[in-house]
Amino acid sequence: MGLNVQKLEVTVPAVAAGSYPIAIGQGILGGLWGTIRQQWPKHNPFIVTDAELVQAGHLKTLAGSEDVPTYTINPAGEVSKHIQTVVAIVEAMEKQCLGRDSIIIALGGGTVGDIAGFAAAIFKRGVPVVQIPTTTVAQADSSVGGKTGVDSSVSKNAFGAFWQPAAVYIDVETLKTLDDRQYRAGLVESVKHAAIRDEAYFQFFENNIEAICKKDMAVLEEIAYKNCRIKADVVQADPTEKNLRRILNYGHTIGHAVESASGFRLLHGESVAIGMVAAGKLETAMGLVSDHRIERIEAILKKLGMPTTIPTDIPKEKIIELLRTDKKAVGKWPRFVLLESLGKALCRDGQWAHEVPQDIVEQCLDAMYE
Amino acid sequence: MGLNVQKLEVTVPAVAAGSYPIAIGQGILGGLWGTIRQQWPKHNPFIVTDAELVQAGHLKTLAGSEDVPTYTINPAGEVSKHIQTVVAIVEAMEKQCLGRDSIIIALGGGTVGDIAGFAAAIFKRGVPVVQIPTTTVAQADSSVGGKTGVDSSVSKNAFGAFWQPAAVYIDVETLKTLDDRQYRAGLVESVKHAAIRDEAYFQFFENNIEAICKKDMAVLEEIAYKNCRIKADVVQADPTEKNLRRILNYGHTIGHAVESASGFRLLHGESVAIGMVAAGKLETAMGLVSDHRIERIEAILKKLGMPTTIPTDIPKEKIIELLRTDKKAVGKWPRFVLLESLGKALCRDGQWAHEVPQDIVEQCLDAMYE
Repeated sequence: MGLNVQKLEVTVPAVAAGSYPIAIGQGILGGLWGTIRQQWPKHNPFIVTDAELVQAGHLKTLAGSEDVPTYTINPAGEVSKHIQTVVAIVEAMEKQCLGRDSIIIALGGGTVGDIAGFAAAIFKRGVPVVQIPTTTVAQADSSVGGKTGVDSSVSKNAFGAFWQPAAVYIDVETLKTLDDRQYRAGLVESVKHAAIRDEAYFQFFENNIEAICKKDMAVLEEIAYKNCRIKADVVQADPTEKNLRRILNYGHTIGHAVESASGFRLLHGESVAIGMVAAGKLETAMGLVSDHRIERIEAILKKLGMPTTIPTDIPKEKIIELLRTDKKAVGKWPRFVLLESLGKALCRDGQWAHEVPQDIVEQCLDAMYE
Repeated sequence: MGLNVQKLEVTVPAVAAGSYPIAIGQGILGGLWGTIRQQWPKHNPFIVTDAELVQAGHLKTLAGSEDVPTYTINPAGEVSKHIQTVVAIVEAMEKQCLGRDSIIIALGGGTVGDIAGFAAAIFKRGVPVVQIPTTTVAQADSSVGGKTGVDSSVSKNAFGAFWQPAAVYIDVETLKTLDDRQYRAGLVESVKHAAIRDEAYFQFFENNIEAICKKDMAVLEEIAYKNCRIKADVVQADPTEKNLRRILNYGHTIGHAVESASGFRLLHGESVAIGMVAAGKLETAMGLVSDHRIERIEAILKKLGMPTTIPTDIPKEKIIELLRTDKKAVGKWPRFVLLESLGKALCRDGQWAHEVPQDIVEQCLDAMYE
């Protein structure tokens, strides 16, 4: 620019650190409404949930006899995780004359949390959101950390915002009504947390796998606690995913590609299980493995009933193509999160995601078919 | 909640202070592209503009012979400030295979800046946006400060985010192609800035009103500079409008209601002019006026060709009803920003917006009809 330019500098002030609580228990859902109203007495509540949660009776347990304005996502599930659902929620809130002093209560799984969290981020430039996750995947993972987002008609998670919850309440008893396939697939995120960050937790998981499969509430409460501790530890070190937080993508790079290549016939957790096994093969090929972690991870995933090979009707070429359009590396070849040992993600030169040449990835994928 | 609850606290780390530059000049648009590419060499640019700007030749001046992916909002203006325009922009970016390393360049007036800024805030959880405002209102006001937002089908600014620009570039020569009514109405925000914050600037405005009306470029550059200095000063003290920033709403509470009641037949600036005159009547009724500021403000607004009375076909009752649904006071009676003297907004007990009983507001509105 030329000489005759006047310049000003606008300071954007620092934002002070904050925090939010996570409370975990058994059968706490029925008492939560009082807690929420007491905590945010001046906010007008609006519940976002889905048809399955209503059917399972959880909305009634939460709201009791109070007539709370509610948006019920219908149908439940990924198909509704679309920007137009967020538009419908915001317009429903406006029709209830809700303003900036609203608080959104998200009761449901990861999809409900993502949709409601994003709606909270953009309604009138942002209102608080309370997350009440009701699935294994949401309790382990998506309710903590502030990532929100929805799909466009072109791709997944095209729209999103970092929007930290005001609080997270986890009632493991809500898992009782979750269908078994969803339940088991969601636990893959727990295995992931243990694998990247906590060997003792991995052992706890191995020792209690039968109780876990039987939905033992005391064990599930312990797992919820351990998951949240790990997730919180990682996200508070790196809230906007500049570096460390990438380790949460362990198993996810190939996992996402497989999930997408399956046309979402495979659940997210099932796909991540395949991605974790594939990551193990990458580690082996890169000469990074001198322990029995690969076998132990595969064993636990099998006990959860997860697939550990790629279905033969999903061609490798499709997966490679999707890896090329990975949202974290548009137009490039992605990096991969790998393990150094069980309970410890690999860090080299301060980086948590690593280059693996395409030919090695292709060889490892070849070995993933039965 | 009961005793058997496990608790964790998640820290949300502090965000460090930042800053962004504003550069103001005459005829700088043609050289900007090089500046932007040099400043953000690793970002893929995407331009958002509107049909009027393209028609006026400004897009060509900016991009030159380079074939930059562009979304042209059509029709230009408020009617396109809708969430579905943002959806269309995001999907256009995805179809161009743009990812998280995109940068959005907003070339246009307040509407373009609001739409493009909001799209930047929510595309893949946020990408930078460069604002190149081309109207008096955008150069004075909306391009600085990070407020972004669009309408739903139910109400104005239902969706929004605070998203600070990466930089603001102001070329006052773009005002040459702005139609005269838009040009004059946009200057009301400048009068507002002077009235709430800087008496010397108000005098400069009075002394140069003829040059201003003739679009004297040197005077306009000075005005752009003074506006940005005031706006920057206020928003950096209070970026998310907790208190001081409310003074920017001087003239806007009644102004918004009048604008809406006119079915947006009145321009924003024209409505704010009416709102500023009405605020003067409130100040008089509250016993706050012992100078000639009311006359001086009204005189300058008249020289800009602004209305200073409410059109008789807009019933007072409609305005009152809209004041009740003001977004800053849903379900309540709003507070009003008032002046203590020319160049100084009134602050009492640390508050910058003040209670005025409804009967006084109604009397003042009665006196606003010719």
